[in-house]
Amino acid sequence: MTHNSSLGPEAVVLLSGGLDSATCLLIAQSEGFGVLALSFDYGQRHAIELERARGLAEHYGARCHRVVKLDFPAPAASTLTDRSRSVPRHALGADAIPSTYVPARNTLFLAHALAWAEGEGCRDIFVGANALDYSGYPDCRPEFLEAFERVANLGTRAGVQGDRFRVRAPLIAMTKAEIVRRAGELGLDFSRTISCYDPGAVGEPCGACDSCLLREKGFREAGVVDPTRG
Amino acid sequence: MTHNSSLGPEAVVLLSGGLDSATCLLIAQSEGFGVLALSFDYGQRHAIELERARGLAEHYGARCHRVVKLDFPAPAASTLTDRSRSVPRHALGADAIPSTYVPARNTLFLAHALAWAEGEGCRDIFVGANALDYSGYPDCRPEFLEAFERVANLGTRAGVQGDRFRVRAPLIAMTKAEIVRRAGELGLDFSRTISCYDPGAVGEPCGACDSCLLREKGFREAGVVDPTRG
Repeated sequence: MTHNSSLGPEAVVLLSGGLDSATCLLIAQSEGFGVLALSFDYGQRHAIELERARGLAEHYGARCHRVVKLDFPAPAASTLTDRSRSVPRHALGADAIPSTYVPARNTLFLAHALAWAEGEGCRDIFVGANALDYSGYPDCRPEFLEAFERVANLGTRAGVQGDRFRVRAPLIAMTKAEIVRRAGELGLDFSRTISCYDPGAVGEPCGACDSCLLREKGFREAGVVDPTRG
Repeated sequence: MTHNSSLGPEAVVLLSGGLDSATCLLIAQSEGFGVLALSFDYGQRHAIELERARGLAEHYGARCHRVVKLDFPAPAASTLTDRSRSVPRHALGADAIPSTYVPARNTLFLAHALAWAEGEGCRDIFVGANALDYSGYPDCRPEFLEAFERVANLGTRAGVQGDRFRVRAPLIAMTKAEIVRRAGELGLDFSRTISCYDPGAVGEPCGACDSCLLREKGFREAGVVDPTRG
């Protein structure tokens, strides 16, 4: 970490390399925050998203980008981390919570973000969670994020001293089309993002996983061409 | 991980190698749980506690012991992880929250425990937090643990499906003397534990950090000899 925190207020932004977290990064910057970007290498099959996260952090001038290697406790519990199973295709909405669910993932990601934020003296944590056009993961819902904010303010020195943390989820109530439009207004280069859970060797999206289907729906409804689809 | 979960109910136990977490392990076993012990290598200066944790897990027959290497986000923020500063000596109670506070440590530890527990199909997580004879860390208080339990049940598949997690802190309202007595009843070999924040090369306690002072007070009040003190 070699950023200069005298440059103004900072926020930790969870940056996966996907459309939503990239939009979040630009929203945080539009609010005047210097961005401390945080990504996780947790054995995900779509590890190419880390390359996209690095590219986004660099291109959009994050003050710092940290990739945490997460010794994930339960790789067999999700098709995103167990490569012997397949990611569901054309199954969006078929299941309340799909097999791509990763146990306690956002709790872990937010816990790391919180520790970093407290250490760096910043109090805003941005997460690209969305509870409308999403896969049905429980840890993307507003009630979860509110509960985590409460944990943050009860379980930290800053929080109990009244210097409160804010878990910011600006996309939480937006449709994917609204996210696409907002990202466009903020100047996001969509070709730098990847949303697919099961991409090919050079990052080409499968076009059939939940995340590809949601992205496709968003671009279609927004009337915007997705440059990542041929 | 090579445990056999057909042997009965299991619980994840956060095991630091100290007196409290060792007592927790025995309490979990006394309630009939097979123990999945979880320790963290987070750059703590008292890394010798990991050797004690390994020894305890083996001696008391934990079904499995996992040591997670934690890429800790803010090592400079605590005297437990920043070795260029000193751990306070003879300062117990002088400060509301001492410099040994590690940002969001229990949030991180519990997040890992939760992910592992959900992956393994167990719902009980034991943590040796104590809010009476303790260093004043905010993430050892019952309101924090209750808030984390709420996160666990809102942010996981199991939780939202009604298969609820329980964050168990059986020592939360006990004095250190009561913990010493309870541990004795359960047959804990105290010589296998270490509580010191700043031990010598072979694990000899400094006798002056908060943790040593609390331990000394507990043994004294319980009328028990601490075999780790000469």
